[in-house]
Amino acid sequence: MASASASPAVAPVAAAVPATPMLKDELDIVIPTIRNLDFLEMWRPFFQPYHLIIVQDGDPSKKINVPEGFDYELYNRNDINRILGPKASCISFKDSACRCFGYMVSKKKYIYTIDDDCFVAKDPTGKDINALEQHIKNLLTPSTPFFFNTLYDPYREGADFVRGYPFSLREGTPTAVSHGLWLNIPDYDAPTQLVKPRERNTRYVDAVMSIPKGTLFPMCGMNLGFNRDLIGPAMYFGLMGDGQPIGRYDDMWAGWCMKVICDHLGLGVKTGLPYIWHSKASNPFVNLKKEYKGIYWQEELIPFFQSVTLPKECTSVQKCYIELSKQVKAKLGKVDEYFNKLADAMVTWIEAWDELNPAGKESAVAPSGPPK
Amino acid sequence: MASASASPAVAPVAAAVPATPMLKDELDIVIPTIRNLDFLEMWRPFFQPYHLIIVQDGDPSKKINVPEGFDYELYNRNDINRILGPKASCISFKDSACRCFGYMVSKKKYIYTIDDDCFVAKDPTGKDINALEQHIKNLLTPSTPFFFNTLYDPYREGADFVRGYPFSLREGTPTAVSHGLWLNIPDYDAPTQLVKPRERNTRYVDAVMSIPKGTLFPMCGMNLGFNRDLIGPAMYFGLMGDGQPIGRYDDMWAGWCMKVICDHLGLGVKTGLPYIWHSKASNPFVNLKKEYKGIYWQEELIPFFQSVTLPKECTSVQKCYIELSKQVKAKLGKVDEYFNKLADAMVTWIEAWDELNPAGKESAVAPSGPPK
Repeated sequence: MASASASPAVAPVAAAVPATPMLKDELDIVIPTIRNLDFLEMWRPFFQPYHLIIVQDGDPSKKINVPEGFDYELYNRNDINRILGPKASCISFKDSACRCFGYMVSKKKYIYTIDDDCFVAKDPTGKDINALEQHIKNLLTPSTPFFFNTLYDPYREGADFVRGYPFSLREGTPTAVSHGLWLNIPDYDAPTQLVKPRERNTRYVDAVMSIPKGTLFPMCGMNLGFNRDLIGPAMYFGLMGDGQPIGRYDDMWAGWCMKVICDHLGLGVKTGLPYIWHSKASNPFVNLKKEYKGIYWQEELIPFFQSVTLPKECTSVQKCYIELSKQVKAKLGKVDEYFNKLADAMVTWIEAWDELNPAGKESAVAPSGPPK
Repeated sequence: MASASASPAVAPVAAAVPATPMLKDELDIVIPTIRNLDFLEMWRPFFQPYHLIIVQDGDPSKKINVPEGFDYELYNRNDINRILGPKASCISFKDSACRCFGYMVSKKKYIYTIDDDCFVAKDPTGKDINALEQHIKNLLTPSTPFFFNTLYDPYREGADFVRGYPFSLREGTPTAVSHGLWLNIPDYDAPTQLVKPRERNTRYVDAVMSIPKGTLFPMCGMNLGFNRDLIGPAMYFGLMGDGQPIGRYDDMWAGWCMKVICDHLGLGVKTGLPYIWHSKASNPFVNLKKEYKGIYWQEELIPFFQSVTLPKECTSVQKCYIELSKQVKAKLGKVDEYFNKLADAMVTWIEAWDELNPAGKESAVAPSGPPK
């Protein structure tokens, strides 16, 4: 593991950094990468106060350059194998799914994860968007998954709950996940990329909203914040990439598992702002090869996740996740042998998580929200 | 019933009217009012090609002026009593809930209803928003209530389904309702009006989205479009106003009933664009008097509607609505005697609907969408 904490005598961009960055000592930024992290230059005004956890994918002998002045720790595959031993098998290789190792070694309450082809976007007034700050706002205010508010986030300045919103639900519920979006290159699957190669997302939708309880969504890992204390052990990005029959479903898998657990535990998930600028589309032919099994497996996965129920004894994220792994094995094992392997890896992931996070193990969350 | 179809020799604003207004002969605009309809002047470029159904509330001897050049029919209380006879008891008096009489007498496939204190809003570029045109677009494209699309309406120009959205769900489902929003005065309840008298909605959120299956929302009747053939008989605005213990829950009631029926029949409900400009806040003290019972009854209504299930024999909107009326009586009658009266009025409403709409009675909608 490489580590650095350079403090240049003169910080030329300090003026752009807010006086006291929110959650400075309570949040880690997790970045999976195979290349030099030049993209951080553009994020310097917003990210420099925070600690970075870099998960180097691919060849561990390659040296990844991190721009001067960032405080970071970097893990390559050798580090992962050394730290987790045989349990390292649950961490994907040659796939950005490896990022979830960073969630596991973090000791902070909050995680923000971003891809290295994501840059600072501008809002409609031309101002640079501090994506991290918006995620933190999303995570620090409650969610409202039990009833839809037509003016979107009711806790935002200038907004509130509309007429007809039950008063008993206006306290909301703790927010576990903040899912941000992307301007420029939209997060399309390979078939859509092939059909619409020139489509760009230019629409800035000025809203944050809670994903309702009982509703699944496609969670993208490109620009994602979460409360590690509340939901961390459910943010496993699965077995993807090298040696696996599937790729590009890592974040989707995490999103479906996470959402059914949040619904069970009465936690909230938000989507919408902030936007990042997604710079380049990945190769649709390569993507198609990675995705094609996922595209048809998914037709069985979604009904499975839509019908999952967790017993009330599952009062912690870990318990929920282990129970979910059993149901994956029982119900998806027949779709493909891969899901038996994935179910085992889900258990290994929890064992590894608990090994690295002995205190706060089974951090119980009391089920809340309306009766199911 | 007063009727008019003035065709001025010279139509000075014709240039602003699109060459062939969408659904010109398939949509009625329903307006409940107690005053002269001067607000229509501002809507002339957008509404003039359409037929208006004006439901005059309050004193039937009062003459309501409608600006020149609009094609309309107007019903006052005497007309309602004459047309419905004893069944007129289901139509509210001295409350904008009376608007639903207009839905019943219409013979068109689509309805747009708007309040007479709503004006044309401007989009962020300063352009007048043709609210009706946006509602029609919303109604003519499918909804996606079975899975959340993070880039909002996937059928909109420049958008699509994102990675991870199941392909089997991309056809969507027919849209029954389009719920539009309001700039300037937000639709707040009396307590929120009292606490935040100066709050104005200035945020233009450039999105249309499907309300997920199983999720309830507060439907506001101020700016609302729907497919009368698909969902008309469920759009009953209840017993409100004169002689009733409650007001300002007419649209809410309709929204909750409509949503559980749409969910059962596999129909879609959208919210978001278009915005209208809501000009004036109603009196919060008067509103509090109308609302206060609703505010606490609602705490029992929402769990009721969240747990309603309709048997699979309910294959038409009418059958669903009659079944719902029985459940209202069985489960809400104990909350207050009012709900027994309301349940009876729900039955009367359906009887009156079928009397006025003998053809197409029980227009069956085959249940669709994923298995429940």
